This record gives sequence, structure tokens and C-alpha cells, in this order.
Amino acid sequence: MATARDVDVPSLVSAAREGNPRAVARLISLVEDAHPALREVMAALAPATGRAHVVGLTGAPGVGKSTTTNALVAAYRARGQRVGVLAVDPSSPFSGGALLGDRIRMSEHAADPEVFIRSMASRGHLGGLSWAAPQALRVLDAAGCDVVLLETVGVGQSEVEVARAADTTVVLVAPGMGDGIQAAKAGILEVADVLAVNKADRADAARTTRDLRHMVAMAERDEQGWRTPVVRMVATSGEGVTDLVEAVDEHRVALGPEGLRARRRRRAAGEVEALALEALRARVAALPGEHRLDALAAEVVDGRTDPWAAADRLVAELG
Amino acid sequence: MATARDVDVPSLVSAAREGNPRAVARLISLVEDAHPALREVMAALAPATGRAHVVGLTGAPGVGKSTTTNALVAAYRARGQRVGVLAVDPSSPFSGGALLGDRIRMSEHAADPEVFIRSMASRGHLGGLSWAAPQALRVLDAAGCDVVLLETVGVGQSEVEVARAADTTVVLVAPGMGDGIQAAKAGILEVADVLAVNKADRADAARTTRDLRHMVAMAERDEQGWRTPVVRMVATSGEGVTDLVEAVDEHRVALGPEGLRARRRRRAAGEVEALALEALRARVAALPGEHRLDALAAEVVDGRTDPWAAADRLVAELG
Repeated sequence: MATARDVDVPSLVSAAREGNPRAVARLISLVEDAHPALREVMAALAPATGRAHVVGLTGAPGVGKSTTTNALVAAYRARGQRVGVLAVDPSSPFSGGALLGDRIRMSEHAADPEVFIRSMASRGHLGGLSWAAPQALRVLDAAGCDVVLLETVGVGQSEVEVARAADTTVVLVAPGMGDGIQAAKAGILEVADVLAVNKADRADAARTTRDLRHMVAMAERDEQGWRTPVVRMVATSGEGVTDLVEAVDEHRVALGPEGLRARRRRRAAGEVEALALEALRARVAALPGEHRLDALAAEVVDGRTDPWAAADRLVAELG
Repeated sequence: MATARDVDVPSLVSAAREGNPRAVARLISLVEDAHPALREVMAALAPATGRAHVVGLTGAPGVGKSTTTNALVAAYRARGQRVGVLAVDPSSPFSGGALLGDRIRMSEHAADPEVFIRSMASRGHLGGLSWAAPQALRVLDAAGCDVVLLETVGVGQSEVEVARAADTTVVLVAPGMGDGIQAAKAGILEVADVLAVNKADRADAARTTRDLRHMVAMAERDEQGWRTPVVRMVATSGEGVTDLVEAVDEHRVALGPEGLRARRRRRAAGEVEALALEALRARVAALPGEHRLDALAAEVVDGRTDPWAAADRLVAELG
């Protein structure tokens, strides 16, 4: 079993802070593995964080997230910025790994030492995203990235978690993927700081854009008075990518230092709570009696008790 | 504030067990409201549960879930069975309510006293689905439903949660929604007990079906030796719906009493754990000091501490 001693944390952290790609990759692996050295790593990274602008990028499968990420990386690199990409795949909690596809498509930037690209599978329970992704973001942040793109496939919960983890959330939509009702069902209006209609060269793009603008116009503005812009783009050709980058910049300006701080505080609160609950969950697993939870679950299935009473007993046994 | 005394639990539970639609609706409202009377309700329902076959139905937005649910309800009603429908909308944790669309589309069965239809919004944190949906399923189960359809929009986490809550999980796919890689990215092969290609009258349906069958053939069989069938259907016309119903029946047979019990035990374990963690979360919120979690989060944002150390302090304060 891995122990904290297997890792020379001080030199690893110092190499990562200098932007050494291998050190960055190693630290993110520690996050993925929930390695015992993580506590020490995060303590060492803490003072170096808070600089990167975290941009969440989400949307349904097939909408062109990887291509858009690629185009955004190129745009930020053209400005001379250091870019991190964290592609989280919350859809594969079982497979334990992201598919090769992402890496292949991102290979155009793979040799650039100012670009850090990492695919991560989020692990089941308690929102892998709320636990692991923020810590991986900390690593990329401390490695001096100006922008970190957090890409995740998403409808529903994972989208919401991206919005919680990001400073600015971009939701990608493709034409014909649904009229207004579908967009609202997918919850995208509520989490999007910027909406981007990709594949805008398609015939039905104008209609989708119009629908979204209409829905945005009916929605209330947020605390900062920001109204979600709807950008049209063709990620494959690069058309409209500058507009997307500008919209993201404008959102950061609109947030202001206080708005940004408020978002990051919410993110940190979620992170701390997830770690605390994970520690409590570990206590549940360590209860005396083999598989205490399983035994209680069997009683519930047999109708001998109900889930509330079983939960009460579990909590009482925690002391 | 609502108290347990506001509700006459014994008569409500007894009416629900007799299949009274208003009592069933009221009990599910208690679940949605996390009403203090819930403990007593669940204790009273416990001995009456375990009869219904819970069929999860999931897929990306636009794939035809509501239409398919409608067609399945008609098929089960034609066999004289009592059917419950729980449409969970995990995509709208902010809006706090399911959209009208579902209810309208389901209205064909709304007047049938042997059909219970309910839309539920899943609430944010800790998987609203893992908490509320299983309790709503208990209500429908105790109300004498032979089959309960659990419909949810889903890619990613919500899909996985449906799979955890259901005895049999049906994943709907539409032609052209993606080739094999997209399907795998969405994690559908791992959670599907039955795959249904809807809109099978479309030109590209044959290709999608072939791709899925190819991927299923490459995957390993599960513990019961079950190989996920790929059914073709057109939910709007009813074509292929019988095949889907048969595939679901066959899966239950393949599960056997032990396989079914194992799934339900997993579901109950998740439910008990979620309730226990919710109780612990409530303890965190009740910690002395205003907004203890927020204060710790602010320290994390400022780089004065890291999330692990903050979580340790939170847990220590729980005593």
C-alpha cells in the first residue's frame, strides 16, 4: 500500500510550481489515487493558488467540447498564456479511466511545454468531481497556469458541479439538439455564464441561437447584473472562437474581485465539506462488525426496518 | 414550520396501501418536502415493500424518454398491471420543479386509477436522487404497483444513480446521437441492462443498432451471464414496444431472486448511507460559530489553509 513516505513532496511541489510538466502530472496522479501524501501536497500548494482563471466547459455528448477546448487552448496560447486543461469524465465511474479519444484530439498541443493537459475519470461516490477536480485544479493553478479549462461531458448533476468548480462556465449547445424546452430541461440556462452555439454553420443554428437568446432575455440577471451572452462559433474552423474568449474575459471583469471571491468561497466550502464527509464515511466503513452497512441494508430490503431507522443506528454507532 | 403532528400518518399510509391516488400523491409530497413525518411514514411502509419491479429509463435529452414511458405504461396496463411512474429531473436542482412538459405528455394515462404518475425534481446536494427517489419508489411499491418506471434525463452521474436505484435499467439511444465512442463516453454500456434504439424508422438507426450490438458483444457478461440486448423501437407508433417489455421481463428472470436481492441491498445501502451522511451534514451545519464552513472556506480561498486541514478541523469540531 502506498504511504506518504513514498513521495518526496517538497521537491515535487517545488518542481510543479516551476511548471515542470512531469511534476504536475505526478501530482495530479496523486489526486486521482487519493494518495496519502495528498494532505502534505495540498498544504504545500495552498499559498501558491488563486491566480488561474478556471473556465468550465460543458455540454451534451457530441456537441464538440474537445474541439472547442482545443480551439480555446490555441487562442490562449496565441496570447502567450499558460493553459491547463482538465478533462473530467464523470460518465465513466466504472471504467476508471478516460478514453483515448480526448488525448488523441488534444495531441496538437501535447508537445507545447506551456500547455498542461490531463484527462481524469471521476470516481463514483459523493461526487468524484467535487472531491478530485478541485484538487487537480489547485495543482494546475499552482503550476502557474493563467487559464485552466475544466471540460466535462454533462447534462444534469455533472454540469452543476462544473458550474460550482469554475469561475466562468461555458455551456456548449449544438443546433438541432433541442428547442427551448430541452435546453431548459437540461438546466443549461441556470449554470451558463456564457452560452456558445457550436457548429453555427449548420442550417438550424440561427433558430437555436434565437431560441436561446429569447430564453436568456426572459431570465433574471445574476448578482453582478451579468446577462449570459450567446456566442456563435464553428470550433473546427476556429470561426467565432475569439468571440468566445472575449465573452469569457468579459464575464471575469463583470464578476469583479468580490464576485470571484464569492464563487471561490462556495467552491472551497463544497470541497471542505466533501472531504469532511468522506472522513466520516471512512468512520462508517470502519465500524466494528463486518460490513455493518450491508447488514443494515439487508434488514431494509427484508422490510424488517426502514432506511431512516437504519441510518439512525449507523450514526449512533459512530459515537 | 411543518411538524410530524400535521400529518395523520396511519390513515394516510393505510389509504396509500389500498391504492388511493391522493394518499400516494401526498406521501410523495412528504418525501419531496423532507417532511418530519417521513420517518414514521417509512417505518409504516417498510413491511409492504419489495413487490414492485423497478425499471429505470434513462438517456440523453431528446431521445424520447417520455414517449417511451407513455408507451410502456400502455403496454403494462394492457396486461392489467398497476403502474407507477416517477419522472425525476436531476437536471434542474435550481428550479426546484419539473417542467410542465412531462405532465402534459403523460396526460393520456392521467385519468387511469391504476396508473400513478409523479414528476419530482431532485434536490442539489448529496444526490437528491439517492435520497428522495428510493423513498418515493417505496411509496409506489407499497401502493401495490407491479411495475414502477423511474424516468430520468441522464448522461453521467444521474444515469449511474438510476442504475443503482432500479432492478432493471433501460438506456434509450437515438440514431445519430453518436457512434460507439460517444456511447461509451456517456457510460451507457456499463449501466444498461437493456439498450433500446428509439426512432428506429430513421435512416441511420441500423448503423447505431449495429454499433451498439458490436460493443455489447465485446463487453463482458455480468454476474448473471446476462448479455444486454439491443431492442429497436419507435415509441411514437408503439412499434417494438412489446420487444422492450419482453426484454425487461427476461432481465428480471435472468436476475433471479438472489440477483434481485443483491441489487436491492446495494440500493438500500446507498439509501441508508445517504441518510446517515445527511444527518452528519446537519451536525456540521449546527456547529457553534456562525457559518463555520464558510469561515473555513474563506481561509482556503486566501491560501491560509488547505481543504484537507480545514476538513480535519470541521470533523474534529463534530466531536
